[in-house]
Amino acid sequence: MPQKVRIALDAMGGDVGASVVVPGAAISLTRHPDTEFLLFGDSKLIEAELARHPALKAASRVIHTDVAVGMDDKPSQALRRGRKTSSMWLAIDAVKHGEADVAVSAGNTGALMAMARFNLRTLPGIDRPAIAAVWPTLRGDSVVLDLGASIGGDAHHLVALALMGSAMASVLFNIERPTVGLLNIGVEEMKGHEEIREAAELLRAMNLPQLNYVGFVEGDGIGKGLADVIVTEGFSGNIALKAAEGTARQMSELLRNAMSRTWLSRLGYLLARGAFQVLRNKMDPNKSNGGVLLGLKGLVVKSHGGISAEGFAYAVDVGYEMAHYDLLTKINQMLNRDGSALASAQTAQEAVS
Amino acid sequence: MPQKVRIALDAMGGDVGASVVVPGAAISLTRHPDTEFLLFGDSKLIEAELARHPALKAASRVIHTDVAVGMDDKPSQALRRGRKTSSMWLAIDAVKHGEADVAVSAGNTGALMAMARFNLRTLPGIDRPAIAAVWPTLRGDSVVLDLGASIGGDAHHLVALALMGSAMASVLFNIERPTVGLLNIGVEEMKGHEEIREAAELLRAMNLPQLNYVGFVEGDGIGKGLADVIVTEGFSGNIALKAAEGTARQMSELLRNAMSRTWLSRLGYLLARGAFQVLRNKMDPNKSNGGVLLGLKGLVVKSHGGISAEGFAYAVDVGYEMAHYDLLTKINQMLNRDGSALASAQTAQEAVS
Repeated sequence: MPQKVRIALDAMGGDVGASVVVPGAAISLTRHPDTEFLLFGDSKLIEAELARHPALKAASRVIHTDVAVGMDDKPSQALRRGRKTSSMWLAIDAVKHGEADVAVSAGNTGALMAMARFNLRTLPGIDRPAIAAVWPTLRGDSVVLDLGASIGGDAHHLVALALMGSAMASVLFNIERPTVGLLNIGVEEMKGHEEIREAAELLRAMNLPQLNYVGFVEGDGIGKGLADVIVTEGFSGNIALKAAEGTARQMSELLRNAMSRTWLSRLGYLLARGAFQVLRNKMDPNKSNGGVLLGLKGLVVKSHGGISAEGFAYAVDVGYEMAHYDLLTKINQMLNRDGSALASAQTAQEAVS
Repeated sequence: MPQKVRIALDAMGGDVGASVVVPGAAISLTRHPDTEFLLFGDSKLIEAELARHPALKAASRVIHTDVAVGMDDKPSQALRRGRKTSSMWLAIDAVKHGEADVAVSAGNTGALMAMARFNLRTLPGIDRPAIAAVWPTLRGDSVVLDLGASIGGDAHHLVALALMGSAMASVLFNIERPTVGLLNIGVEEMKGHEEIREAAELLRAMNLPQLNYVGFVEGDGIGKGLADVIVTEGFSGNIALKAAEGTARQMSELLRNAMSRTWLSRLGYLLARGAFQVLRNKMDPNKSNGGVLLGLKGLVVKSHGGISAEGFAYAVDVGYEMAHYDLLTKINQMLNRDGSALASAQTAQEAVS
């Protein structure tokens, strides 16, 4: 564990860049004063923002670059134009060269994933990285992955996701043996894609000391908190996440409209506003900000692009915690304990099929 | 359009059977007095319930059978044990033989789908049936399909879903040319599975007079009401539906807990209870009950298994509307207009690939 947590920030990432990234970092710094920042981007813009946040300024170093990856750049474009020069690349590069413990960017997901993969490379045994995030549930929080880093994948990929997600959950929630469920459209054994059924067999057969496979979980089981870690390939993970976010937003809007309908309901709202604040806090999408890129030889956190400073601060917090509790070492242990869990998955898979 | 709408009910379907099905039908009858019912199942149980609902009794005929499909029966088991004898089969059979306009069952989905497919057969050009349901959005209602009848599918399958979903939306919402979106994990053209991108090209190339293809829609676009019809294969459709249902339930529970925390919030709740009723009505999962099996030579509606009489009544309502507005003819027109839209999709697909 490093003395201080050193966070590299892509200060140009996101819909607005420095004017959210810098104040966001300032908020996170108040929560974790043992943080140092490397800020990559247009130094004039960054310094202007830092002037308003003296504590952050004292904990930061600014590294200037003119190049920024656009929010609509395709991954190939971003790599062509921004490799070795863009703020996003440089933030990742700082992690690669050990100058930072984690990089945080609100830049576009495809470009970030491509650059992180290209520059940091994947861990041994991992073909494709994943994005994992914390999902608030009725029972506490769960880790859900993959939220859209890659589409599809075989049983071996799903097992790798289960291992990495468990490492993240055990670091984040401080539990020894997180429960793991595979997202499926039914809980019966015969349900779902073949690769999901195969992954279930593998996880059961592997019977790992570091994760507790509990079976299939349906879409509504995520919010019930039926497992600490919910595993699925990136397409359905992304659909689940966005459908849930959409429903939460829809209900908030309906509630707001309903509460302002009559003077009686407006009065009721005033009296109960403490309760509404509790609800808002629990369902605050800002608090779920910060997707962790898993499977790389370095820590990278992705923030939503269209986010407030408060929201960006949560992504910085996630980066802080992942670095502070040394997620990378935990994942490596998970992948390699007992002579590589994934290799044993491979063997088990061959035995099964 | 028939004089009266004749609805065949699987009175044994669902977690509790007749004690929900019969009172549910009675509720629906008050909303649509021009309905006649055929009730299939254990006549003793059915008659006991009918005794409490004289108006329904007068509009019903009971057909006795001892055999009921279990909620946990596998489709193959259900077919083996319940073919030609079970209440579920007989209700579907009534549709096949023109004795009923639509069958409604709260029995298990796999069995219902297998029996309906086996007995009614699919429409020309349709390989695999789908389940569609109405999804409440901020802009009104949308039709979403497939919610889990089958997993995966090529571009041709997705186009067939788009056509059938549009037929349902145009019947249900009384619109000429419903807007149609393909569910995807991004709105950019390069995103998603190949078959989705191919289906997008096909729908654009076909430029049909009866549907207006508007592009990709992300998971949170469903609740925003970005299209009248949202098309996806059954796995991700089911995941999206359940994730949304789970989130709605989670928020309701959080809200309930929050509102009962202090005497002030409880008082606020009392004053605003009209507003909460409005919200509850809008998000009432009962009202979304009733999945329509599309692509068969007959109308079948699937109700949730664990539902109240009020909820089952909504599924009966859906059956009524589908039959009353003659969805089947509309779908057939959709599939065949201009010399079979699906054949032209096939040709377009060959041209594209």
